[in-house]
Amino acid sequence: MIKSPSLSFDTTAALLAQALSSGNLSRVARALQPLDVAETLEQLERLSTIDRAVAYRTLPKDRALEVFERFDAPVQADLLTGLQDAQVAEVFSALSPEDRVPLLDELPATVASRLVQGLGEEDRALTTAVLGYPRRAVGRYMSPRVVTARPEMMASEALDRVRQQLDEAESVYVLAVTDSSRHLLGVVPLRDLLRAGGTEQVADLMTPPSFVPATLNAEEAARYCADAKVLVLPVVDAEGRLVGVLTVDDALRILESAENEDSARSGGSEPLRRPYLATPIRSIVRARVVWLLVLALGATLTVQVMDIFETTLAEQVVLSLFIPLLIGTGGNTGNQAATTITRALALGDVRPRDVVKVVTREVRVGALLGLLLGGLGFVITSVIFTVPLGTVIGLTLLGVCTMAAAAGGLMPILGKTLKVDPAVFSNPFISTFVDAAGLIIYFLIASAVLGI
Amino acid sequence: MIKSPSLSFDTTAALLAQALSSGNLSRVARALQPLDVAETLEQLERLSTIDRAVAYRTLPKDRALEVFERFDAPVQADLLTGLQDAQVAEVFSALSPEDRVPLLDELPATVASRLVQGLGEEDRALTTAVLGYPRRAVGRYMSPRVVTARPEMMASEALDRVRQQLDEAESVYVLAVTDSSRHLLGVVPLRDLLRAGGTEQVADLMTPPSFVPATLNAEEAARYCADAKVLVLPVVDAEGRLVGVLTVDDALRILESAENEDSARSGGSEPLRRPYLATPIRSIVRARVVWLLVLALGATLTVQVMDIFETTLAEQVVLSLFIPLLIGTGGNTGNQAATTITRALALGDVRPRDVVKVVTREVRVGALLGLLLGGLGFVITSVIFTVPLGTVIGLTLLGVCTMAAAAGGLMPILGKTLKVDPAVFSNPFISTFVDAAGLIIYFLIASAVLGI
Repeated sequence: MIKSPSLSFDTTAALLAQALSSGNLSRVARALQPLDVAETLEQLERLSTIDRAVAYRTLPKDRALEVFERFDAPVQADLLTGLQDAQVAEVFSALSPEDRVPLLDELPATVASRLVQGLGEEDRALTTAVLGYPRRAVGRYMSPRVVTARPEMMASEALDRVRQQLDEAESVYVLAVTDSSRHLLGVVPLRDLLRAGGTEQVADLMTPPSFVPATLNAEEAARYCADAKVLVLPVVDAEGRLVGVLTVDDALRILESAENEDSARSGGSEPLRRPYLATPIRSIVRARVVWLLVLALGATLTVQVMDIFETTLAEQVVLSLFIPLLIGTGGNTGNQAATTITRALALGDVRPRDVVKVVTREVRVGALLGLLLGGLGFVITSVIFTVPLGTVIGLTLLGVCTMAAAAGGLMPILGKTLKVDPAVFSNPFISTFVDAAGLIIYFLIASAVLGI
Repeated sequence: MIKSPSLSFDTTAALLAQALSSGNLSRVARALQPLDVAETLEQLERLSTIDRAVAYRTLPKDRALEVFERFDAPVQADLLTGLQDAQVAEVFSALSPEDRVPLLDELPATVASRLVQGLGEEDRALTTAVLGYPRRAVGRYMSPRVVTARPEMMASEALDRVRQQLDEAESVYVLAVTDSSRHLLGVVPLRDLLRAGGTEQVADLMTPPSFVPATLNAEEAARYCADAKVLVLPVVDAEGRLVGVLTVDDALRILESAENEDSARSGGSEPLRRPYLATPIRSIVRARVVWLLVLALGATLTVQVMDIFETTLAEQVVLSLFIPLLIGTGGNTGNQAATTITRALALGDVRPRDVVKVVTREVRVGALLGLLLGGLGFVITSVIFTVPLGTVIGLTLLGVCTMAAAAGGLMPILGKTLKVDPAVFSNPFISTFVDAAGLIIYFLIASAVLGI
């Protein structure tokens, strides 16, 4: 009865790979049969697009649907291209409205509109409502099917409402209380309804709602849901009318994909849209090449800086020995600051208004780090080489660390203010900038101290 | 009635700052009064430790408790030092057992044991049970208070069980079904209990449970909870007996703190334990300095490499112009690969067994990127400088990109295999390694092509 979720993972993966390469479909089905939904998902996500389509079609119908709705939209779209039209329509109509929308975004427009037309009337209306919100708005991710109650209802009536909608509603564990024009008045957890005597009024049980406007950025809404520790976050329109709810599991998904994006950008690439092993090489190259080219072009700045100081370098070749160390340290200091501030912005711990506070703090942190490293660099270089060279290295480390920390703190805030993803002003970007600026600091200090 | 959660954030922050600096406590209370729990949390997290303690004490008692349990443990510990013993004991006993444990880890051992002794008998037993699990295990984060049912119960009996435990249980929306020795047999969502006729048996309603062992790493358990899309994940001991549940909101918190850690390490620093603006400068320096020193020591390797090739450099000073660009590009390519693989490991998309697959893929990606960049570098350098120099730059870019992508893919897996956090083999670490290796590639190619 007892099995750990990851215990037999590698064995299953090996079995599945063998079965797929043998082309024996019933062996594939047998390899997948003992797995639960999450395990099936994990195994299928590792496969190539074609193998995944093959394996997917061996799943029993109910399991196939459960697995399908948990895939990310690009993977769902890949799977649909391998199915027949009738199967596609069936899978599509089994999805909930908020799961249909990201999938539609992935499909060719003609396919998308045919699928929407094929839905039942109510389903089509719900899907179209969600489709109406801008791409990154929480309205796109909310579930439009909500259990509502009126304030004048008795607890027992509200409970009956819950019972009637057990099959349709995305979540039945929190009820939204609205007036007759759907204005949101409060929320009542099912827990409190169960606790109440049947004749207590909803108005006496409800609490003031946490809620978000439907046009709010989905990531912000999801963090709000997480911070408020609620299972269900009501979503309202500009007039305060209830239009849907964000459930905590959808919030989790939104946050996970936001982290994917931030993580990729902080490494200087675009996020992959599919699991790593399932992503073709050319898609990985595409996700990285633009950034790499932009950064390499930016780095030609360093060639120009070096060119300006070529005579200094020719006179004192020893100076060139320290270039990788100095710009590397600058890059590291800048990265540390940028990563911290990007994360603090994402969490809402820091806001663009705090720019002066942040830069002041980072200058102090950078100067302290620079004093430590610079002191150490001065001593070591003075012993191994000469005291004047030690002075140059020490002062440069102090200058570079201070400059890099300040730049690393400033850039993400600048990005956020310019409505660019702060992570786009990412670590490699900052390294490139800090490299050029650090070289200038280095050569100016060297010219001054060594009198070149 | 309608307000957006972040609309008046800056205004409130300004009001609060003024009130705090005026020392007028009723003004502080008034500034906080209109906020809900999540907003109060956001505002307090931005304050210094002392200001936060002052503001916290102006909160009404119920609100204070709600806010307290949402803070991270280090902030909770800071707050407790500002309260009187009686208040501390009161706050502590109001926490749920799984929230008490991380707080205890933050407190001096004498304070911690006094607090545990002060709990009621049942509470003490529950807290001690959670305390018994290793630090990063999910057992530490689970809630030991679970609503259970027996398979032979009727649905109505199970519902009565829920009603009895509305006040104690962390979640009442999923029941765990166990036998008489608490072996986990299945789960029943409350939704299905409500749907069932009162006389249906729990055995016919329950589904096979997704569950995790209590010793499983908390981050893995939280991701499993997110992937399985369950509100409540049962946690079992080695014999398969139910010991608690992980709720989705606790999973969210675990993932958020794991992301904090990964994000900080990918930037080459330790995670801050408090919100950025609330972290003293010296703590920020401490989180960064060790990494920076280690990396700077590593970078002395580059000085040695440069030293070896000093005569080559003295002969052809023009070679030094390209050093920052070449090692920068290598660092960027390595970062891209390392970030992708670190994230894929965290998500479970890649496992240590996949090492050969990953490195093969990264070599191909790196070589393709190197061909593109190298081709471009060859053309531009040949035009501006000379064809032989263009050849050196082009070949070096090809070699550096391939090597860097392979190293960036390999390192995180190496880290995971050595049971080190893969993010510790982080971007700055890889940059430092790639810098030294890239320089060797550069000078070897230059010597061969230019015949130095």
